[in-house]
Amino acid sequence: MTNAFEELLNIGIALSSVHDLDKLLDMILLEAQRLTSADAGSIYLVEDNKLIFKTTRSNTYFKRWGEKKTREIFKSFELPITKQSIAGYVALTSKPLNISDVGKISGKSEFHYNSTMDKQYGYKAVSMLSVPMLDMNSKIIGVLQLINSMKKRKPVSFTKKHERITAALSSQAAVAILNAKLTEELKSAHLDTIFRLSAAAEYRDRETGNHIKRVSRYSKLIADKINLSKYESELIFWASPMHDIGKLGIPDVILQKPGILTPEEREIMENHTVIGGLILKGAKADILAKSRIIAMTHHEKFDGTGYPQKLKGNAIPIEGRITALADVYDALCSKRCYKDAFPEEKILKILNESRGTHFDPKILDVFLGEYDEVRIINKQFADKEEDFDKFIDVKKINISDLLRDTQ
Amino acid sequence: MTNAFEELLNIGIALSSVHDLDKLLDMILLEAQRLTSADAGSIYLVEDNKLIFKTTRSNTYFKRWGEKKTREIFKSFELPITKQSIAGYVALTSKPLNISDVGKISGKSEFHYNSTMDKQYGYKAVSMLSVPMLDMNSKIIGVLQLINSMKKRKPVSFTKKHERITAALSSQAAVAILNAKLTEELKSAHLDTIFRLSAAAEYRDRETGNHIKRVSRYSKLIADKINLSKYESELIFWASPMHDIGKLGIPDVILQKPGILTPEEREIMENHTVIGGLILKGAKADILAKSRIIAMTHHEKFDGTGYPQKLKGNAIPIEGRITALADVYDALCSKRCYKDAFPEEKILKILNESRGTHFDPKILDVFLGEYDEVRIINKQFADKEEDFDKFIDVKKINISDLLRDTQ
Repeated sequence: MTNAFEELLNIGIALSSVHDLDKLLDMILLEAQRLTSADAGSIYLVEDNKLIFKTTRSNTYFKRWGEKKTREIFKSFELPITKQSIAGYVALTSKPLNISDVGKISGKSEFHYNSTMDKQYGYKAVSMLSVPMLDMNSKIIGVLQLINSMKKRKPVSFTKKHERITAALSSQAAVAILNAKLTEELKSAHLDTIFRLSAAAEYRDRETGNHIKRVSRYSKLIADKINLSKYESELIFWASPMHDIGKLGIPDVILQKPGILTPEEREIMENHTVIGGLILKGAKADILAKSRIIAMTHHEKFDGTGYPQKLKGNAIPIEGRITALADVYDALCSKRCYKDAFPEEKILKILNESRGTHFDPKILDVFLGEYDEVRIINKQFADKEEDFDKFIDVKKINISDLLRDTQ
Repeated sequence: MTNAFEELLNIGIALSSVHDLDKLLDMILLEAQRLTSADAGSIYLVEDNKLIFKTTRSNTYFKRWGEKKTREIFKSFELPITKQSIAGYVALTSKPLNISDVGKISGKSEFHYNSTMDKQYGYKAVSMLSVPMLDMNSKIIGVLQLINSMKKRKPVSFTKKHERITAALSSQAAVAILNAKLTEELKSAHLDTIFRLSAAAEYRDRETGNHIKRVSRYSKLIADKINLSKYESELIFWASPMHDIGKLGIPDVILQKPGILTPEEREIMENHTVIGGLILKGAKADILAKSRIIAMTHHEKFDGTGYPQKLKGNAIPIEGRITALADVYDALCSKRCYKDAFPEEKILKILNESRGTHFDPKILDVFLGEYDEVRIINKQFADKEEDFDKFIDVKKINISDLLRDTQ
């Protein structure tokens, strides 16, 4: 067993360093398959007191259909945590079940094997090892299920050694899963804060929260297609909602002026880029540093006629060039107090006329090349009438429901 | 070795579930000591290309002085990563060093043992095992150093088995340390976003960012002293900066009016509590849910005369009662356009007169009981003249320095 345990140590270390939950679950399954020579396996996680089928691996199906199609066929579904199903039984009892032949489970047994899928796809599950994944306090967080331990191309029973190794792996897996979930929760809490506060800040500007959602998605769409790393592209997605945060320093009387601004007013208005930089100055987190750059450069123009620095061409940081296009495009598409939304034809004409003057031609080409996707985003996060008056009808709000957040 | 490895598996799981870096480092040392019968040990982490001494454990010193005093004596210090010191040598070469007697290191050796502390405190280090902590890509993240493996109360050499076990432990420790650091980074990035955007939102109200820092700290001070869990108390610290976020929905003309508000204006102004609730409605993260409650209830009064719901006594959520006091206290202490800061005597008089009317008497007592600490916070986060005009002198800003964030 020494070697097996030494190997498990290394597996534990490898699992601990994966923070993407989907990748992690797949890696856990792959290692479990390998350690037990299993043909297939699945992972269920406990969420809202149910078992959610999360991922599967199957040598047989992967060979037949490839990974992608297999995963499409075995989509997520949920099981109640009851003794009827094998996974439910294991979750409820927190004890592993090592079954030599699922076809021979006694009719008197509390649990049953559901062979619907097997029959549908012509697969024969024989041996099955189901192991609870328990956290440090022995609370169930999921079930790891392995099917058909293979020996000389025949399914055989899972051994006692398999049981021990899979139990050890499951404990390591459990803590890695909880850590990956914690990381996801921390990230999504931060993202939610950014979107909510940025949207609230834009409310004074008569923007709905959808504007920043669209700009953020257009920007990521572009970033994904040019030579930026996945991390950089994610950063731009997170950071771009704060591009106009500096407008908090601009008085209502200028920000909300219906007519054309005087040169003096315009100068004050343009300060919102620098004020954004000041709000985010000195921040250590990559997201906020990226936001600072975007806030300060999203009004620069490719020909050097923008503000605040009249930067030209590639001297404008790439994230500034990207959000400049995303922001202007969204403004053209949107209804404003002083204008209706432009028709698509006119918008495309304006964009193309601004190639190399306002916009980086390379970025514009990428954007136009993804125009189908742009339309989808535009539609998905379209402003609805009610988005505009959300803060106005405070009297209509049921305040005590809002306090309990049951609205 | 099987048992040792099986034990290591469990240690790895335990380490992975600790997200507080200081606790984690102590736990790593404790396990390393236990597995090698070491009398003492230390951990250095690599930060900014230096080795930072982070923590120590010593059975001898803990017995002599207790843990607290020992830790005070062995404060953090830094070492360059060079071959002169043993820890530096290990960090530079990424190889362990197992030294039988540090007193007998040859004069020709590149590294030397610094016995200054030993001489000062009458300790004799003999055997020493120093192990590099490497991440998944074999990058050095720190050094684990163990001193005097004890056998029958005498220091003996660390064995080959100790070397193997400590190497395995170090790899587990490395990934756990990186995870704990990641968690800390994610949390502090989120916290920074909350403080910066909340402070920017308050700028329109002529508040400096210090106001929310003080309110947040006063609130936590109170929460720490009443029967709230450490987690709840942390949540209040994080959530309270957003208490006035709803003011983003209030027009300048009312928010910045110098004189007394008309009843109609006052009604609009009071809407900021409900607007704050709307901004934060439906958020899943605990921090934002807590913020929603605080935003909606920090103007309620204990006798039921507050707004927006005229909640009374304990019907006001505890976090609302806490921030109500913290917010009013800070307003009384602060200079406003329409008033100077009040003298302390007058402030205390006002607070005491509001016992049971505006403020929960229990919370007021806790606050007054911690008044020395309140004064320290007030001083530490005092407004300075320059805090008030940070957004006004945009012309004085060196914009290109701000873009590179070198200001």
